Amino acid sequence: MYALIRELYPICRSISGEGVRQSLAIIGRHVPLQITELPTGTEVLDWVVPNEWNIRGAWIQRLSGERVIDFARSNLHVLNYSTPVRCRISHAELEPHLHSLPQHPEWIPYRTSYYAEDWGFCLSQHQRDALTDPEYEICIDSTLQPGHLTYAECVVPGRSSDEIVLTTHICHPSLCNDNLSGIAVVTALLEELLRQAAGSPPFYTLRVLFVPGTIGSIAWLAQNRQRAQRIRHGLSLVCLGDASPFTYKRTLHGERDIDRVLAHALRASGLPHQVIDYFPYGYDERQFNSPGFGLPVGSLMRGQHGRFPEYHTSADDLGFVSPDRLEESLSLLRLAVSMLNDNRRYRNTKPYGEPQLGRRGVYRALGGGDIADAQLALFWVLALSDGTHDLLQIAERAALPFQVVRDAAALLERHELLALIHEHRSPPEPGAAGA
Amino acid sequence: MYALIRELYPICRSISGEGVRQSLAIIGRHVPLQITELPTGTEVLDWVVPNEWNIRGAWIQRLSGERVIDFARSNLHVLNYSTPVRCRISHAELEPHLHSLPQHPEWIPYRTSYYAEDWGFCLSQHQRDALTDPEYEICIDSTLQPGHLTYAECVVPGRSSDEIVLTTHICHPSLCNDNLSGIAVVTALLEELLRQAAGSPPFYTLRVLFVPGTIGSIAWLAQNRQRAQRIRHGLSLVCLGDASPFTYKRTLHGERDIDRVLAHALRASGLPHQVIDYFPYGYDERQFNSPGFGLPVGSLMRGQHGRFPEYHTSADDLGFVSPDRLEESLSLLRLAVSMLNDNRRYRNTKPYGEPQLGRRGVYRALGGGDIADAQLALFWVLALSDGTHDLLQIAERAALPFQVVRDAAALLERHELLALIHEHRSPPEPGAAGA
Amino acid sequence: MYALIRELYPICRSISGEGVRQSLAIIGRHVPLQITELPTGTEVLDWVVPNEWNIRGAWIQRLSGERVIDFARSNLHVLNYSTPVRCRISHAELEPHLHSLPQHPEWIPYRTSYYAEDWGFCLSQHQRDALTDPEYEICIDSTLQPGHLTYAECVVPGRSSDEIVLTTHICHPSLCNDNLSGIAVVTALLEELLRQAAGSPPFYTLRVLFVPGTIGSIAWLAQNRQRAQRIRHGLSLVCLGDASPFTYKRTLHGERDIDRVLAHALRASGLPHQVIDYFPYGYDERQFNSPGFGLPVGSLMRGQHGRFPEYHTSADDLGFVSPDRLEESLSLLRLAVSMLNDNRRYRNTKPYGEPQLGRRGVYRALGGGDIADAQLALFWVLALSDGTHDLLQIAERAALPFQVVRDAAALLERHELLALIHEHRSPPEPGAAGA
Repeated sequence: MYALIRELYPICRSISGEGVRQSLAIIGRHVPLQITELPTGTEVLDWVVPNEWNIRGAWIQRLSGERVIDFARSNLHVLNYSTPVRCRISHAELEPHLHSLPQHPEWIPYRTSYYAEDWGFCLSQHQRDALTDPEYEICIDSTLQPGHLTYAECVVPGRSSDEIVLTTHICHPSLCNDNLSGIAVVTALLEELLRQAAGSPPFYTLRVLFVPGTIGSIAWLAQNRQRAQRIRHGLSLVCLGDASPFTYKRTLHGERDIDRVLAHALRASGLPHQVIDYFPYGYDERQFNSPGFGLPVGSLMRGQHGRFPEYHTSADDLGFVSPDRLEESLSLLRLAVSMLNDNRRYRNTKPYGEPQLGRRGVYRALGGGDIADAQLALFWVLALSDGTHDLLQIAERAALPFQVVRDAAALLERHELLALIHEHRSPPEPGAAGA
Repeated sequence: MYALIRELYPICRSISGEGVRQSLAIIGRHVPLQITELPTGTEVLDWVVPNEWNIRGAWIQRLSGERVIDFARSNLHVLNYSTPVRCRISHAELEPHLHSLPQHPEWIPYRTSYYAEDWGFCLSQHQRDALTDPEYEICIDSTLQPGHLTYAECVVPGRSSDEIVLTTHICHPSLCNDNLSGIAVVTALLEELLRQAAGSPPFYTLRVLFVPGTIGSIAWLAQNRQRAQRIRHGLSLVCLGDASPFTYKRTLHGERDIDRVLAHALRASGLPHQVIDYFPYGYDERQFNSPGFGLPVGSLMRGQHGRFPEYHTSADDLGFVSPDRLEESLSLLRLAVSMLNDNRRYRNTKPYGEPQLGRRGVYRALGGGDIADAQLALFWVLALSDGTHDLLQIAERAALPFQVVRDAAALLERHELLALIHEHRSPPEPGAAGA
Repeated sequence: MYALIRELYPICRSISGEGVRQSLAIIGRHVPLQITELPTGTEVLDWVVPNEWNIRGAWIQRLSGERVIDFARSNLHVLNYSTPVRCRISHAELEPHLHSLPQHPEWIPYRTSYYAEDWGFCLSQHQRDALTDPEYEICIDSTLQPGHLTYAECVVPGRSSDEIVLTTHICHPSLCNDNLSGIAVVTALLEELLRQAAGSPPFYTLRVLFVPGTIGSIAWLAQNRQRAQRIRHGLSLVCLGDASPFTYKRTLHGERDIDRVLAHALRASGLPHQVIDYFPYGYDERQFNSPGFGLPVGSLMRGQHGRFPEYHTSADDLGFVSPDRLEESLSLLRLAVSMLNDNRRYRNTKPYGEPQLGRRGVYRALGGGDIADAQLALFWVLALSDGTHDLLQIAERAALPFQVVRDAAALLERHELLALIHEHRSPPEPGAAGA
């Protein structure tokens, strides 16, 4: 995963443009991607696809020709989505177009102006303080004109057409944690799941969306209204490479399956973590949770949106993320997806009294791990398999690991003491109607 | 408010009689009152209007003619609703008719005997100890005979015929906190609301009941069975002038709108307070909450019924209440009533994804106060306006002040991003049926 | 109760056989029992009645003829349900058939092998250590052959055909707390209730099941499918004579009437206790709570299943239980049963406002105990008798003892201010359907 981050790091991405396409091409060497290009001006829900932005270079130079700020050294130097500009400018006129961080004088901030035409330079406070000449030559060699919005999907087909959706935003330039880490972790997960699914497909179809933030998920939802109805569980994946403990942000509803699964998986991981309530800012989960869609999409992260000092600065670099943390994130995500796939409801086929397990050799079939826990799990599964409790609820009530309960259920199913409930899944009911 | 209390203080009120009429005449100089007089013997729910009581004077005098106890000095000296008596009486025979407070030897207690014919004198323990003569002349110059029960209403018409009801008892003689304070605060509120309503009527019709305790609210309910069905929120207002922190006593149900509003308003006030559960004694809230009516009427007070030493004694005098505390009570009540009027439910008209607020200039319209809170409120209102959450629920979930959320909703409504839910309000379902 | 325990103590009981019949004959001298005998091979739910086991004696003796282990000294010495064996055996071959407790070297463990044919001896660690001869003569003079499974019922008829069921297991040999204590306490309760019911039958029909553990309650349920539908409340009674604080184990559902009653009764007892959640092992409550039946059967005990060191050892003897503890258990059980019988729902017949209690002389009828509590109970019962709250809910909300609330309700019913709700009780809905 770290290698992929390293490869993607230098590219200047934005919500549209060649940087996104190059990045998707690299990801596409790992997993098969289906790319969508939507022309500028396309109406997507309440939004409109904006002009496409591309940039070749940008600089501030002294009249002597010395380049003091150069896009070639860091793509953060340009206000993302800057309109083109090339002129001689007084220091006073330049000033309002400069962005720096006085409290972190070494770092370059990351700033954008997607939906209001503007131009600007981002630079360290030290660099800014060194701009003492009365005049400068400046250049932003960008284009902002009709083009396309680009996003990509990768699907792991499951036995059901119901879906798990994982979204990750691909619109940030050279920032590692936010969000090359999310891209790398979900790409690694996809590689694993595609390999496994070839032999034995999982229950749910898994769809990963590589989208520019906000406009990208809005565009996908606009293009996939029917398909969105099949989403049963979802996660927005961001900032998964830094050293912060995990944070899981619940869905707007707050008690959906994905909320229970992540809370259980985090506890089971033994790693420090927190589970926090939904709030209507952050990443792409907002669009899925909007009242019209009402989809159960939570958000998994390590460092939280806006809460770590390196957030949206040049300090979110290759040193800020580590292979170990990425591995931890991948492990947790793998567990959560497997729990979603394995969680189901059963009906006890011998519900009157306890079935005689000894006569059937069920106890003898227990093996490995903690036999007492495994036996207890058998009784709990039989007691609560009335068709209303799922395995995760049973695990929580029994205070047993999900896997132990899942394995007990599988054993009982082999002995025909449990029958799987084949759920007729109706589309979720969004809070508000209308189109 | 304090001036009104001072004016009402000397009058001897009871559950019926001229004292009530004089008091209502004084209140009627501030706000328009509709007076009801119900004849003795009228059946009101399970009760019957009793004889009317009036009193001209009362005293205990030594055989020498020296008046040692005199109603003219304090109307608390007579057991309220005493039957007339005039005779020479031995000290021993007089004793069982005397009421004093050994633990507060300077104070005169307030006692009543409305529904069991009796007579008596209330006096300080010091006065009682000084009654050392073997015989006294006593006189209670009262009448207890067919007449009327008197109560008054004042209505501030709203756009809806649904009502907020505020009740305050007017049956106590010279006691300031209990309940001239309630009378004064609600009269001041009425003056304000009548003035405002002339220009812009509030949502709810507001009805204030000035009633003798228990029998008065029973009489009103008996006479207004249909109208009572329109009560959506209510408060019994008592003891609002002393220095105790606020206490809000919930409705019997405990989770009605009025309960949520008062809890929020008290928190927002920043003043010390407590919220306590309903119990079936106290003031007029009991009649409204009875299972047949099942009306959501809580009770707001400072000092609690029977919990402060001055309660129902001569120490509940003009020095026990203060203009500042009355103002605090008025402010809180004003806030609660405005919250009830402004609380409503909306439907997000662009529920699929987030609407593009920037394009519409919504952000630019934010002004004054905390811009970050205001912006957050916009997102919360959009996220939760699915037709089921009211603004107060949104404020509580967002941990934002009600006013910020209300203003955000108003701004979104102006941009046609919200549509007001016009509620068809059916009558509340009382717990028990039958008439 | 202690005398009955002493009388039953020496008998060797098992899940079938003469020991059970002798024990029931002794109990039958106290209360009328209806005995059921089911032939070996009868199918009962998912189980089959096993062969009947009987034993005349058993021993291990040295080749010299000295008996070192003798069933005549303790019936725990034989693995319960041992197949017959008589032979000369090497020490090495005997070893795997021996059971002892190294951590309690003086105590003989109690072990069984009901459903897997086996034989064995249980002995103290000291006795085992003394078995140093190379060879022994051994004998288990038992029979394991077609016969019957025996269980008994005793019924106290109530006014309703709805039932309270109390179960107690009768399959253990010389173990006092587990479960001669349960047998003794429930027998004493039955004697009392039969005496009282002769004069004034209680509301519910009470049924006590004296059954061998697991197979016994399964057999009863199999034979009484229709009757089981009438069970409204139930308790499994075990380990009621030791010095541990009480433990009440909730039903699987966790919030049934029996759960609320036991929690209230335990608090009211003032004795140390704990209330714990259901778990699917323990005693006969498991069969009743199984999803097909879904019956509300909790479990009352002192020492908990497997949690006290003397559990299932020879140390659970006549010294381990005491008359005082048995009395406490009986008192608690008596209270719980009376609460179940007296708990009901009423409708306030004067639900509009408060009825005028003074006029009716209700206050004068209050007497004994705490008048203030009694008066408060009147108001609470009137306020909450909307047909949905039962007396126990009212008592809990009012924080008053159940008896005070029950007595207030009875007084109000005599004054026709309350009408009893005659409940149409439909059969409980089990979690899973099917036969």
